[in-house]
Amino acid sequence: MPLAPASSEPVPASHLDDDPAFPLHRGGKIEIRPTVRVRDNAGLALAYTPGVGRVSQALALDPELAFDYTWKSNAILIVTDGTAVLGLGDIGPIAALPVMEGKSLLFKEFGGIDCVPICLDTQDVDEIVDTVVRIAPAYGGINLEDISSPRCFDIEEKLQARLDIPVFHDDQHGTAVVATAALTNAARLTGRALADLRVVISGAGAAGVAITDMLLAVGVREVIVCDRLGVLDPARGDLTPVKARLAARTNSSGATGSLEDALVGADVFIGVSGGTVAQSAIAAMAPLSIVFSLANPDPEVHPEVARAAGAAVIATGRSDFPNQINNVLAFPGIFRGALDVRATRITEGMKLAAAEAIAGLVVADLTAERIVPDPFDPRLSATVAAAVSAAAVRDGVVRPRAAGRVAR
Amino acid sequence: MPLAPASSEPVPASHLDDDPAFPLHRGGKIEIRPTVRVRDNAGLALAYTPGVGRVSQALALDPELAFDYTWKSNAILIVTDGTAVLGLGDIGPIAALPVMEGKSLLFKEFGGIDCVPICLDTQDVDEIVDTVVRIAPAYGGINLEDISSPRCFDIEEKLQARLDIPVFHDDQHGTAVVATAALTNAARLTGRALADLRVVISGAGAAGVAITDMLLAVGVREVIVCDRLGVLDPARGDLTPVKARLAARTNSSGATGSLEDALVGADVFIGVSGGTVAQSAIAAMAPLSIVFSLANPDPEVHPEVARAAGAAVIATGRSDFPNQINNVLAFPGIFRGALDVRATRITEGMKLAAAEAIAGLVVADLTAERIVPDPFDPRLSATVAAAVSAAAVRDGVVRPRAAGRVAR
Repeated sequence: MPLAPASSEPVPASHLDDDPAFPLHRGGKIEIRPTVRVRDNAGLALAYTPGVGRVSQALALDPELAFDYTWKSNAILIVTDGTAVLGLGDIGPIAALPVMEGKSLLFKEFGGIDCVPICLDTQDVDEIVDTVVRIAPAYGGINLEDISSPRCFDIEEKLQARLDIPVFHDDQHGTAVVATAALTNAARLTGRALADLRVVISGAGAAGVAITDMLLAVGVREVIVCDRLGVLDPARGDLTPVKARLAARTNSSGATGSLEDALVGADVFIGVSGGTVAQSAIAAMAPLSIVFSLANPDPEVHPEVARAAGAAVIATGRSDFPNQINNVLAFPGIFRGALDVRATRITEGMKLAAAEAIAGLVVADLTAERIVPDPFDPRLSATVAAAVSAAAVRDGVVRPRAAGRVAR
Repeated sequence: MPLAPASSEPVPASHLDDDPAFPLHRGGKIEIRPTVRVRDNAGLALAYTPGVGRVSQALALDPELAFDYTWKSNAILIVTDGTAVLGLGDIGPIAALPVMEGKSLLFKEFGGIDCVPICLDTQDVDEIVDTVVRIAPAYGGINLEDISSPRCFDIEEKLQARLDIPVFHDDQHGTAVVATAALTNAARLTGRALADLRVVISGAGAAGVAITDMLLAVGVREVIVCDRLGVLDPARGDLTPVKARLAARTNSSGATGSLEDALVGADVFIGVSGGTVAQSAIAAMAPLSIVFSLANPDPEVHPEVARAAGAAVIATGRSDFPNQINNVLAFPGIFRGALDVRATRITEGMKLAAAEAIAGLVVADLTAERIVPDPFDPRLSATVAAAVSAAAVRDGVVRPRAAGRVAR
């Protein structure tokens, strides 16, 4: 249902509430609840002063005890500056809040994680980093969300360098994990090895960069990334530093030209751009082509168009078509797994383990309409979490628990 | 139960859990919960993308709609830097977290308010102010907590100047509201007018300053404030700027000397210092003296000692004596009342209204053992909230609601 007037005039609430999304959002979608009840002065004396003072004293001597005696081991911050919200762009911090609440809701429903929304009233990289570092002590992880590229790369890197808890930009890594899981299964289904695929990615932003890196990590050898002006090749003089580095580690075949040029004979198209791709370009791909049109709400190629053009496996970002490439398949389990072992960061190994676990859940009954699990698959979060926890231990990024200190 | 070793060695958890406060704190005391359920893809499409995008678009056009369609109208931040936690002093941000969680629990239990703990990894006034301003957009109020004096005065003032939501330092104003309510009833009980009282306050920190200001506002004419070196009088050369300003607006009788000197003939003693006062000093006060020894856990004068010295009305900060002067009597109702009318700040009028409402709840059956209500009095929060809301409207600090915009 479209919003009626695209002006700066307030929209009458009576109009808004015709859309069922609005009544559902009234008063917000999350709340804080006590997990212990205080019914009398004796309860008050334990949960609050003076009892709480003894707990605080113990934490002053050994701050790691916060993982046992506060919500820190299960609570994360979801942080945005409102610059790249869904497909809506830079709509500001307050307008991003419904999305952050939605994500918090999903973190709890699917991962059992307490997730506090932080909508930042600044777009300055260093101010964002300083702010998040200062408010981090009470939290066991940071999920970055809807922050525009290329600022998001800097922010994530600087934050992780200064914090000993996981920092995870979901628009990059969540998308990459699910796309990699989906592509792994699509390749299986069409009888090809990842190493033999020619993959064309449209979009060189947060998702495009992260998907590229993950595909290279799982053994794809030929990835060609395109932005609005065509193939990223090192000879182009207009590349930003991020795109120049991306060009340097991709396009091993030396392709040039437009996205359509790159798609000729390609095995895989992954769209994370919001642009459009013509039916003829899909038709020019290799036989049994794989088409992931992830732009929301309007896919780069409509699934029916891609099918008519000969695509064998088709995925979108939408829930009303088969094979939804949705980050919700990944982020609850990834953070659950990281928090369960008190990980200090999220490694490449943990992300790869998540992708494998997601793909593995449907590998036994793979079809062209089912290359990823349903978000409501009850096995999903626990399976991903277990794989991520194991990878964290393998990678040695687990917070030490002093044997004498923690008795669970 | 004391903590065994006062060293930097980790305390074995087996010892800690002998104290019932510790098992109660395991895993923390609060959680985030969804208020809407998402059971299938249709639900996901409303609470999350694409439905949430339409709500975000509406908020981008009119950010005030966040008060209707997010948790902002009921969610506040509780912010500390860990510098003045209970009576424990500067124990750092992480060690303060159990206290912040306890406060969050009380905000919800007594006020129905969603309260997110923020434990700041900085003690710099400007960094604190900048940080809180940047994370404020998703919240309808700021409760400052356990921040040392005199920094707390600057931080509160600067924050309120930059934010259009209430900023409230509970250690100042919550304490002042409850102490004023208690003193109002103690004066009634002993048949004296507030204007005729000679009040001596021990402690010139956050609570001492705020109590002084509020007593002057309700008509007390003679307030004498003492710090560790005795009466604050303008002639003293060692006063900080805050204390010099305090001296200039108090001590109208020109008292000098020690706290004991000031107490001779005084009607009221209010201790918020953590020091001790001798029985003889209480005995030297006027007949029917009023003694509020609010230091926790050790009152400046033990209630039995004060009684033996002739005090007629005695209050402490502890739950195991009658007349507990506990901020929990005030802060849930004050914020409830402020949020209910979407107040932009908390005025002197709102605080006075809260004090009157608290005092009024027990005025019909006043005794020396019951000058303030019990924290579990079921009328408390709603009564305070209604008085505070009305005062906010009177004081004109209510956020305008566009008639065409908001339909509740």
